[in-house]
Amino acid sequence: MSATTPTQHRERPGQLISGEIAEQPAVLQRLLDQGTPQIREVAGRIAARRPRFVLLTARGTSDNAALYAKYLLEIRLGLPCGLTSMSTTTAYGARPDLTDCLVITISQSGGSPDLVASTRAAREAGAITLAVTNNAGSALAGAAEFHLDVLAGPERALPATKSYTAELLALYLFVEGLRGGDGAAAKVLPKLAGQVLNRGQEMRALAGRYRFAERMVLTSRGYGYPTAKEAALKLMETSYIPALSYSGADLLHGPLAMVDNVSPVIAIVPEGRGGQALAPVLARLRGRGADLVVIGSRAEVERAATGFTLPTTAVAEQLQPVLEILPLQLLAYEVAVSRGQNPDAPRGLAKVTQTH
Amino acid sequence: MSATTPTQHRERPGQLISGEIAEQPAVLQRLLDQGTPQIREVAGRIAARRPRFVLLTARGTSDNAALYAKYLLEIRLGLPCGLTSMSTTTAYGARPDLTDCLVITISQSGGSPDLVASTRAAREAGAITLAVTNNAGSALAGAAEFHLDVLAGPERALPATKSYTAELLALYLFVEGLRGGDGAAAKVLPKLAGQVLNRGQEMRALAGRYRFAERMVLTSRGYGYPTAKEAALKLMETSYIPALSYSGADLLHGPLAMVDNVSPVIAIVPEGRGGQALAPVLARLRGRGADLVVIGSRAEVERAATGFTLPTTAVAEQLQPVLEILPLQLLAYEVAVSRGQNPDAPRGLAKVTQTH
Repeated sequence: MSATTPTQHRERPGQLISGEIAEQPAVLQRLLDQGTPQIREVAGRIAARRPRFVLLTARGTSDNAALYAKYLLEIRLGLPCGLTSMSTTTAYGARPDLTDCLVITISQSGGSPDLVASTRAAREAGAITLAVTNNAGSALAGAAEFHLDVLAGPERALPATKSYTAELLALYLFVEGLRGGDGAAAKVLPKLAGQVLNRGQEMRALAGRYRFAERMVLTSRGYGYPTAKEAALKLMETSYIPALSYSGADLLHGPLAMVDNVSPVIAIVPEGRGGQALAPVLARLRGRGADLVVIGSRAEVERAATGFTLPTTAVAEQLQPVLEILPLQLLAYEVAVSRGQNPDAPRGLAKVTQTH
Repeated sequence: MSATTPTQHRERPGQLISGEIAEQPAVLQRLLDQGTPQIREVAGRIAARRPRFVLLTARGTSDNAALYAKYLLEIRLGLPCGLTSMSTTTAYGARPDLTDCLVITISQSGGSPDLVASTRAAREAGAITLAVTNNAGSALAGAAEFHLDVLAGPERALPATKSYTAELLALYLFVEGLRGGDGAAAKVLPKLAGQVLNRGQEMRALAGRYRFAERMVLTSRGYGYPTAKEAALKLMETSYIPALSYSGADLLHGPLAMVDNVSPVIAIVPEGRGGQALAPVLARLRGRGADLVVIGSRAEVERAATGFTLPTTAVAEQLQPVLEILPLQLLAYEVAVSRGQNPDAPRGLAKVTQTH
């Protein structure tokens, strides 16, 4: 009889996701080292086709990466962008004229049938199609004219972590490639990501604050807004906390009514114009007595109840989202574990979601 | 000394919003009777300019009307669309080339400085600009090349109700005008809206279910998705319930983990392809033991815990959103009043939001 039983082989709850969170500095380094030439070549070929308009298609975590790309494309390239409402194609059979359109579909697995179908439809409608996936052998990678592999390696925990930051970096390098840049500003990221992830103890302390939270509000503005959305998704997936996310401006148009001194608010405050645009929102939140925790610049953390200072001063604002999400991934992990839940395998979810 | 004191003149909580909810059949009738010629003329002039892409800009309730217009434009006209991330212009100074773009900005008050600034910037960048407001004398109406007045009359309650359904109908008539239609299918709406609003007693009964709810999830798909988002916003503004809204497909990509048998779910199930695409999501929700309430077709209401049957069989799917939101406005009102809150004046909000 063997000395080990199946029980002994079982992984502890959260072992997969904590391993994948910790892998991120290495994933970012691999993408910079091995992915950059391919991304630059694809960007050059697409730039030569001179797209006039970009549509981004994704779901879940990848949809937050798509929103990040939308900011990059609009701000860095002046290209008008839209996020696809996929059902217009898959449920209603819309067949828009997509001449001059670049359609970017982002998916970790590359396996959702609706993403494959909508990419095929876009290609038939005249679009330049680009798939961004973590699986070069996926149906989605095959359906699109161009493909970028984010090279994050197999992701086994159900909530996406390393594939998200890899998607952000791949999209950054792609957009820089479209404008003829080399993306060298991204080279600082692996080292800084490692420094942030080494401060897990700080997030463990912060997680205690949310042990019994029944709701959370996350807010940011500009480049930081996709981080607010992705952090809310992580908290919902792992801890089942209803976590609402708003751009700071949208928060003032209604949902602010919901915020009081028992509603925890986490604000992601980028160092740069997004953070500056958020300042009046933070003032309103302080005025309402909100429990405000800041992830971002030292100055704003010091003005809040507490927070996590990011090493942002040497990082271009458009690259800060790659760092901003890291403490929030740790937070989601810590809150889930403290509640006795297994963040590797949230109830009700599958890794490849069969939406049609 | 006067027999009346200021106290006697005070309105009862919710008097303004309940009056404005009740006005909607008359508002829709007025827009059909008096607004249609102007809308058709503007649509004809814009169609002659042959826009290739559409960008929609709005916040809060009007952003949900913008999402409705996005579905209409993509499905009925095959025009690629995007919702604007306003900070790219106002915070980051992006100046995209908007030649061939139609930029539609929607705002009840027409007064938010950021909407006026982004409309001016779009016009300078070569866009065809259209403002849709409830105030023909507003700064926004003046900043855009074209203007549609939704003719809803002064809206005094802070949460928007009648201006939302008026925006939906104006946008429907505009999109029909772009494709050369007369929008005659909308003529049934005022009468049906009146029938729905006469069933307030049913929503009062349903509101009891949510007296102590600490969270809610709203879901739909296709044309019904803007209704889910707007209903969530109304519930947050009036009752301060954290109300999350997802398209059915997005719900399966993560947030489903949050839904259990103590999480109330309201599904808006249109009669048509959106409702059909939602069917597998409803099956998953039933399988997880969710408390599922349906607003929509009789067949789906009968399969749920309870619900509200809409008179949808004689209404084109793309017009059903004008009716779907009505019982949900009543629900938000009833839940707020049952909790002793005043839905006319939620804490923390202003009617014209000064976002920049």
